[in-house]
Amino acid sequence: MATNGTNGPEGNKAKPAHRFDPNFTDNVVNTMGPNMTERNRVVLSSLIRHLHDFAREVELTIPEWMAGVHFVNAVGQISTKTRNEAHRISDILGLESLVDEIAHKIISEGDIDPTSSSILGPFWSPNAPFRPLGGSIIQDPVPAGGRVAKMHGVIRDMTTNQPIPNAVFDIWQASANGKYDFQDPDNQSDNNLRGKFRANEKGEYYFYCLHPTAYSLPTDGPSFALLNLMDRHPMRPAHIHIMVTHEDFQGCTTQLYPKDDPWLETDTVFAVKPDLIIDFKPSKGDDKCELDLEYNVYLAPKGYKGKQLP
Amino acid sequence: MATNGTNGPEGNKAKPAHRFDPNFTDNVVNTMGPNMTERNRVVLSSLIRHLHDFAREVELTIPEWMAGVHFVNAVGQISTKTRNEAHRISDILGLESLVDEIAHKIISEGDIDPTSSSILGPFWSPNAPFRPLGGSIIQDPVPAGGRVAKMHGVIRDMTTNQPIPNAVFDIWQASANGKYDFQDPDNQSDNNLRGKFRANEKGEYYFYCLHPTAYSLPTDGPSFALLNLMDRHPMRPAHIHIMVTHEDFQGCTTQLYPKDDPWLETDTVFAVKPDLIIDFKPSKGDDKCELDLEYNVYLAPKGYKGKQLP
Repeated sequence: MATNGTNGPEGNKAKPAHRFDPNFTDNVVNTMGPNMTERNRVVLSSLIRHLHDFAREVELTIPEWMAGVHFVNAVGQISTKTRNEAHRISDILGLESLVDEIAHKIISEGDIDPTSSSILGPFWSPNAPFRPLGGSIIQDPVPAGGRVAKMHGVIRDMTTNQPIPNAVFDIWQASANGKYDFQDPDNQSDNNLRGKFRANEKGEYYFYCLHPTAYSLPTDGPSFALLNLMDRHPMRPAHIHIMVTHEDFQGCTTQLYPKDDPWLETDTVFAVKPDLIIDFKPSKGDDKCELDLEYNVYLAPKGYKGKQLP
Repeated sequence: MATNGTNGPEGNKAKPAHRFDPNFTDNVVNTMGPNMTERNRVVLSSLIRHLHDFAREVELTIPEWMAGVHFVNAVGQISTKTRNEAHRISDILGLESLVDEIAHKIISEGDIDPTSSSILGPFWSPNAPFRPLGGSIIQDPVPAGGRVAKMHGVIRDMTTNQPIPNAVFDIWQASANGKYDFQDPDNQSDNNLRGKFRANEKGEYYFYCLHPTAYSLPTDGPSFALLNLMDRHPMRPAHIHIMVTHEDFQGCTTQLYPKDDPWLETDTVFAVKPDLIIDFKPSKGDDKCELDLEYNVYLAPKGYKGKQLP
């Protein structure tokens, strides 16, 4: 580097072609040393380049940058063992859904794609009990406003269309007040609205659950402040979580959404996909329920990669 | 949206051209409502697009995303009134220096550019006292290892090369232990190594200070963990902070770096620019100091925009 300042005015300098130092970002990236994993180098280099490109593209001001600094600190400060605000922020920016798509998207070589993946969310439990086929996940009395549905379908191999006997269908859902058992110990017993079912020899599963209820993300903290700044609502469409697994197939963790839900197009965590939209119909000839829901699941065999697209 | 699942296999679908939903990011951006400022829309749209492009570009995995979520929470959780970890993270990623360049870079129409800006840092004080020209900012005894220098120069209008009488030259620096008065109450009195000087009729300033000392950022917390992950050191090159102001000129806040400092090329906050590199020389004929430092400052008049480059 040339020195300056001690020699009076800087004369005869070639004028740059760009307002900003074109070497700045390369310099930051190249300051990383040799003793890091290649994967970390790839991820952090891309992160730094996008961060800088963002700042230059919008000509980020010093007050805007400082607002971002305060925001990041506030996100961590409101987080606790039971509240993960950075997770929520990444959800409302679409990042968790995108990462889920990157991890799980399979496009088949044939006509049938596997059932789309969607985000796990924070309310899955590893401890949900197995229940008999035809049983109910509604362990507590049906809550006010709750509508009972019989849910059923067939779990199939998407490459052969053959059923998958013994596949495990794990389901969990919020109650009619929009809360999961974890969040609602005064009203719900443990494992209310949760359960695992093992498909029969025909790949069939069936049980009773509730028509799901839309709910709002918490309306305090940095995530809600960000939603307000973006003039967005905090609503998730009503949904049922499912996780379908079998030792010979790639598991599918996803969510199902009633087709008439008003928040489908604007789900605040962007987790809706067309094949996950379901149609509750009036039940016929089953006095245990008001509604009927058929949903068939397609799994890809383990190791199946599908069509390799760019 | 079409429904699925209730109608058996999905057949006859056109295969997509890309592995990932090409409408996903537009959908997230377009979910923002009409009641937000246009500036917020521009900034947040760009932020979301870059965040998603980053994730797709590196095919960010779920464990990597979750590591990022935990990292953001940890950044906020270690921050206090006197420790701003998100600020430090943005510094080690080069963001504060970039935002400073975006805010302050002026490329002159003529031969002389104004003195480059650099980041303010967290240690400037609005309360530093004015001291007489020829005075010293070394209020406490010279610390062990400290070398006294006479610093002097002329503050000029970069458009005319004429001196700027009465310009204010504000200087602050860490002591030989790498700490500022704020951080070191046991060893330093208030305003030690700080002071403001008013230039004389010839635009000249001169006073005594220390040759600066390189120091490390804190070696705990998420910022140091990130430096380790990147195989980077936590060192800032030795530097003197200056802020030069006059009511008719655009102020210049910057930092000056001895040309022989080993950390110049790899400053961990990327705040070094070529015209900010200084050359301490042996003092001749002044028994108050060991070293001599000449540094001339060039300011742009208020309203001067300079060459408009892309």
